[in-house]
Amino acid sequence: MSQPRFLILADGDFGPMTSKTANSVIRYRPQQVVGVLDRQLAGRTSQDVLGFGGAIPVVSSMTEGLALGPTAVLIGIAPSGGRLPEAWRAWLAEALDAGCELWSGLHTFLGDDPMLAARAKAMGVAIHDVRRPPADLQVAGGLAKDVDAYVVLTVGTDCNVGKMTAQLQLVDKLNAGGVRTRFVATGQTGIFIEGWGIAVDAVVADFIAGAAERITVQGATDADIVLVEGQGSINHPGYSGVTLGLLHGSCPDAMILCHQATREYIGDYRQAAWLRIPPLSEYVRLYERIGSAVHPTRVVGIALNTYDLDDVAARRACDAAQVETGLPCTDPVRFDPAPLIDALLQDRQRYLARRRAG
Amino acid sequence: MSQPRFLILADGDFGPMTSKTANSVIRYRPQQVVGVLDRQLAGRTSQDVLGFGGAIPVVSSMTEGLALGPTAVLIGIAPSGGRLPEAWRAWLAEALDAGCELWSGLHTFLGDDPMLAARAKAMGVAIHDVRRPPADLQVAGGLAKDVDAYVVLTVGTDCNVGKMTAQLQLVDKLNAGGVRTRFVATGQTGIFIEGWGIAVDAVVADFIAGAAERITVQGATDADIVLVEGQGSINHPGYSGVTLGLLHGSCPDAMILCHQATREYIGDYRQAAWLRIPPLSEYVRLYERIGSAVHPTRVVGIALNTYDLDDVAARRACDAAQVETGLPCTDPVRFDPAPLIDALLQDRQRYLARRRAG
Repeated sequence: MSQPRFLILADGDFGPMTSKTANSVIRYRPQQVVGVLDRQLAGRTSQDVLGFGGAIPVVSSMTEGLALGPTAVLIGIAPSGGRLPEAWRAWLAEALDAGCELWSGLHTFLGDDPMLAARAKAMGVAIHDVRRPPADLQVAGGLAKDVDAYVVLTVGTDCNVGKMTAQLQLVDKLNAGGVRTRFVATGQTGIFIEGWGIAVDAVVADFIAGAAERITVQGATDADIVLVEGQGSINHPGYSGVTLGLLHGSCPDAMILCHQATREYIGDYRQAAWLRIPPLSEYVRLYERIGSAVHPTRVVGIALNTYDLDDVAARRACDAAQVETGLPCTDPVRFDPAPLIDALLQDRQRYLARRRAG
Repeated sequence: MSQPRFLILADGDFGPMTSKTANSVIRYRPQQVVGVLDRQLAGRTSQDVLGFGGAIPVVSSMTEGLALGPTAVLIGIAPSGGRLPEAWRAWLAEALDAGCELWSGLHTFLGDDPMLAARAKAMGVAIHDVRRPPADLQVAGGLAKDVDAYVVLTVGTDCNVGKMTAQLQLVDKLNAGGVRTRFVATGQTGIFIEGWGIAVDAVVADFIAGAAERITVQGATDADIVLVEGQGSINHPGYSGVTLGLLHGSCPDAMILCHQATREYIGDYRQAAWLRIPPLSEYVRLYERIGSAVHPTRVVGIALNTYDLDDVAARRACDAAQVETGLPCTDPVRFDPAPLIDALLQDRQRYLARRRAG
């Protein structure tokens, strides 16, 4: 299957801090992005707006965007208010009529819109609502613990700290080093980047672990290492159920703990300053204990997100995390991810030795 | 609202070990059950078949059942294979035509069956698919931690160990003692018994804690104690996500740990003898630690399910659990639930004192 060439819809919200989904697709799959539609920033490039993405142009209309030759339109931001604006709906219809697929991670499924569904059908093109769960999910059966591949899950101190990004920073280097490595996407942005996966927070609660198990097993079929994208946090009052189901369903042999260095409170509850983020070493103990209740696992390294620090402060934060936890720590975006790669490869040697012995 | 009078559909499967939902409704709401439909056992009584439920008759047809004057038909077993048998469908149509509501906890929603939906509409009667989640659920906002009521959650070593039953054994005694106590149902059987609630395992994963929060807050509006029905287990490979979402969403001030005394392995994985149930004291530590990561909570007692032991062995099992954990333990069905009630009331005094102290 040839890879889609995306026109990214980010109207009114393209920017370094606002269009997280669009930005990740541009960062990790720039060769698949033909342009970005944002009327406010038309005429600039991705490089101008984000500081990366090179000459990818920002355009002011769907007609202009379609002229760039996309095979798919990707929804790169969440519309404010959650409802699909009428302007977007008209653009999406225009794209379908031109033979483009739609890729969306919105909670409201585009395929359930009768007008869009009819046009997609008429043109014979697909609408990929990547948050729509497969219809045949099952309760987890413990299958992920039996895969031959070494399974690594990123776990976090909160949402939105870099759990997907950490894995994406490692996967290419591991492959380049000769270890067949697969990234397993569990959220919409990861699915856009990788082209497959299940948004585990969108499945019926009974099937969180079953969904995680299915994609872990699928990722392990032709890989030596499987990097499973983590979600949420074990102490997040809203999303901890997703986090634990993903942990127990994917049966990781190792975990990488992800944290944003300057964050003090669980983000979604910050206005109330409700839940202070405990020390990293507490997270290490908690994740190891609760994870190992189903399948033996340990945290082998710390991925620190230092985007809002200067270089000196960032290095200092990594050193402090390393001292506190006794584990290798780096910011795999800003600095060399080698400490995490070395930690994984060493732990995988122990894993392989145990399997040979056992 | 007057309480429904149920005819329970349990065709082919009414029995002490097979019809768990039917049996719980008969045990806790016998005055609301007019009869049971099971062609194999027609002519007997609930007392004959289950050993409780008195003269509630078993009938052989819907016509005979409707003659008993039900206002609702309740699906009391899961049909084998998961699909609604045609015979049941015809019976349900007959019941709707007679003006009866339908109450179902099946995964397949009766209200989505066009024929049944049309008949219900024509008669102006409701189809209650109690596993269908409310459409307007939200991510948990931490509201349950702020209720005035003292919130108690049952937690378990596995599924199907007595988490609902333990709460139902306590609620009437607490009310009789003058403490306004509400049972909050989180599964289909509890919802049938109580008449309201949300099946938290049927909601979209993002909203587990939000659903738990909503019903906890609702239960707390006119109660001094809220008893929230627990689900699954923190180390259950399939359902732990539901368990943790429920724990963090309901923000219990106290927990009762439930265990079936003779169970050695997590039930659903027993054939593979995969996961041995660790000691109760490990569960106590794990639930307290993971629960308190969001809201301070402790286990105040143990509810032991001893249904398959003789009296001497049952008493011995309770004593052993009490010694191991240092917590009061009883089988609240078989023995006096007083030790658990005393533990709750004492802990609630401490809770009230802490709140007064601010």
